[in-house]
Amino acid sequence: MTDYDRFFSRAAATMRESAIRQMGAVLAGAADMVSFAPGYPAEDTFPWQAAAEIARELLGGADGSVLQYGPTRGHRGLREAIAALMGERGVRSTVDHLLVTTGSQQGLDLVARVLLDPGDVILLELPSYTGAITAFRNAGASLVGVRQSADGIDLDDLDRTAAAVRAEGRTIKCLYVVPNFQNPAGLLLALDKRRALLDWARRMDVLIIEDDPYRDLFFPDMASESETRPIAADDGDGRVIYMSSFSKTLAPGFRVAWIHAPSAILAKIETAKQAADLCTGPLDQRIVYEACRRGVLTRQLPALRAHYQHKRDVMVRALKRQLDGAVTWPDPRGGFFLWAKLRAPLTSDVLLPFAQKRGVIYVPGHAFFVSGEGHEFLRLSFSAPPPERIELGVSRLALAIADATGATAPSVSQSPAASRA
Amino acid sequence: MTDYDRFFSRAAATMRESAIRQMGAVLAGAADMVSFAPGYPAEDTFPWQAAAEIARELLGGADGSVLQYGPTRGHRGLREAIAALMGERGVRSTVDHLLVTTGSQQGLDLVARVLLDPGDVILLELPSYTGAITAFRNAGASLVGVRQSADGIDLDDLDRTAAAVRAEGRTIKCLYVVPNFQNPAGLLLALDKRRALLDWARRMDVLIIEDDPYRDLFFPDMASESETRPIAADDGDGRVIYMSSFSKTLAPGFRVAWIHAPSAILAKIETAKQAADLCTGPLDQRIVYEACRRGVLTRQLPALRAHYQHKRDVMVRALKRQLDGAVTWPDPRGGFFLWAKLRAPLTSDVLLPFAQKRGVIYVPGHAFFVSGEGHEFLRLSFSAPPPERIELGVSRLALAIADATGATAPSVSQSPAASRA
Repeated sequence: MTDYDRFFSRAAATMRESAIRQMGAVLAGAADMVSFAPGYPAEDTFPWQAAAEIARELLGGADGSVLQYGPTRGHRGLREAIAALMGERGVRSTVDHLLVTTGSQQGLDLVARVLLDPGDVILLELPSYTGAITAFRNAGASLVGVRQSADGIDLDDLDRTAAAVRAEGRTIKCLYVVPNFQNPAGLLLALDKRRALLDWARRMDVLIIEDDPYRDLFFPDMASESETRPIAADDGDGRVIYMSSFSKTLAPGFRVAWIHAPSAILAKIETAKQAADLCTGPLDQRIVYEACRRGVLTRQLPALRAHYQHKRDVMVRALKRQLDGAVTWPDPRGGFFLWAKLRAPLTSDVLLPFAQKRGVIYVPGHAFFVSGEGHEFLRLSFSAPPPERIELGVSRLALAIADATGATAPSVSQSPAASRA
Repeated sequence: MTDYDRFFSRAAATMRESAIRQMGAVLAGAADMVSFAPGYPAEDTFPWQAAAEIARELLGGADGSVLQYGPTRGHRGLREAIAALMGERGVRSTVDHLLVTTGSQQGLDLVARVLLDPGDVILLELPSYTGAITAFRNAGASLVGVRQSADGIDLDDLDRTAAAVRAEGRTIKCLYVVPNFQNPAGLLLALDKRRALLDWARRMDVLIIEDDPYRDLFFPDMASESETRPIAADDGDGRVIYMSSFSKTLAPGFRVAWIHAPSAILAKIETAKQAADLCTGPLDQRIVYEACRRGVLTRQLPALRAHYQHKRDVMVRALKRQLDGAVTWPDPRGGFFLWAKLRAPLTSDVLLPFAQKRGVIYVPGHAFFVSGEGHEFLRLSFSAPPPERIELGVSRLALAIADATGATAPSVSQSPAASRA
């Protein structure tokens, strides 16, 4: 028995592997590859010593619940700590509006399953986060993109797009936005636009899914904390489902993130999570809770901002030195990503096998679009590699671009990675 | 804005809260309640000291991947360890046929999403595990039950049921079975029936989902390891998707379980997991891997069998002493559950408020059926409470049955738990 096609669901038949995870597979198989592909945080920033100390105490066995099944909504102490974090961000929340998820990816998946039926329209930024695109697609939703300008989503294009969708008789359920240091474009949504989006959502009777993993990682030289105010902070009538995570500020290995939502929506999400994984890892939740309670997280943040701002500087300087004119980009004001645009007619897909041959990888831009565009872009993550590897990677990228704009094709066409590209 | 109904997906509109989790909420709100409801393992059996030692080493920071994002399929070393475990169970497996899931509940959810379309029929035992029922229902599948006899699923009823479903023109995609110490009925599926199921699946061109969390917890006085041989062990043509877990043998708080499946199916499950939570907690996976590698798991098992066998004895003796004639049950030969049947006309739903008033809870039997039956049954978990609490709980149950079969209704009708019952 080798053909299982008749057993697969319609959803499974159309599921696509994540472009970022594909790049991860390329990386796993290659020696000395500089990876600008996955948006991994830097491992040397993780709070190793504090985590070891906390784990030692928790695993002393005095509290059996540390390794037992836990409540689906999440550990109560952790939810209280998250409510306090939300308060610092300007959002009034309580434990009754919060649910802990197994990473933000689970949050996206649960929200998609609870809100979206096949054919429902969800609007999102062009470009947008691939993990969200996949979660929404798996629910069978129809994804429609809205352009961005330098300060985030283009409100005129939003109106035009929404009107066009409605004119076709289709239902717009939600708008998905990443307001702070967006993955992949790195943009910061202007404060007045945030408030305008709330008005728009009210007028259109649409929910906003606000995905905010990078908020704490603003770069002090180009952005201030006040510019990161969540849309949810000014949500007067329960339009916003807000998501954030500890993956970028403590460590992704804990798989601890959260959703803040109106209680009726949260109750549905909780029911969906019961069937999805019962509960997020209790040991992980408790470590994160203790890291909040003991001030570990608070102490991390200034150091993280300095760390990633420095790496941004290294990448920007290297790009200016080696690729000025060949690529353009908006300087990232926070987060993990630099969104580079190639000079036509070169595309990031054509470039990729040359880049792999030279020993550097990235995620091709079209993975972040929902309608086949974006081939002139590449997402460069500067978060994980050390500074000298960033410089090496940019040098290799420069060589690859020179290769690709020359006449010769690279001789890597036999590798599976190349054939995917 | 208070009415979100128009925003919910059709799946969300029909999602139901798990009956077991409801009972968990009752327990959380009650003082001195003896809980026979959730199937929690005993916290004093968890390998606290080994876990603390392993965590201390892992969090030393020498290997950054411990707290980084990990591969969606799971940590390679852990998958190798699982392949070895599978070998001990008689199933030939390799890392390429294994995927680590965030608990077995995620395995059920992923399998459901990958295989089941709305309207597809999945056959399952009457009674069956509620978490599986919920996962299959959330995929929109149509669940059809097959009777069990003392040695597991009734093959004649299976044939009759399948023929009736096909006569209606409906597609049977899968059969879901829990062969070892089934949740909730505690039954052990006879070896000849296991092989007969494989023949049946081949003949009918149906997949088997074999869910096997309790296999290691056979009670030596009434069952042997050879009687637990997985259906997957004799699967010659890739009919079986096999699932198991470390939740009952190490601790559920790690949320580490696995799926063994034909590679084409596993590839789809991997893609679905990418969008569901990217990866299972890497720290948890590494702790479990080290517990396997260092022999912690192997050393646990004889002690666990003795522990749960003793608790089974305590419950059975207490039931015989206090409730002989009022309830009947098959003696559990392994696992966590005793499946008790009340004497008509008393039902477990009518009994529940009386039981809560006396300070004991359980899961009413109908939660494990897919067609409104089972009201005469109750599932009693003997796994978590200490022996003296098991005895106390059975005494309370005896009082509650006396109350319920007397004329007076209990005065607990104001409590939300009672109104749910």
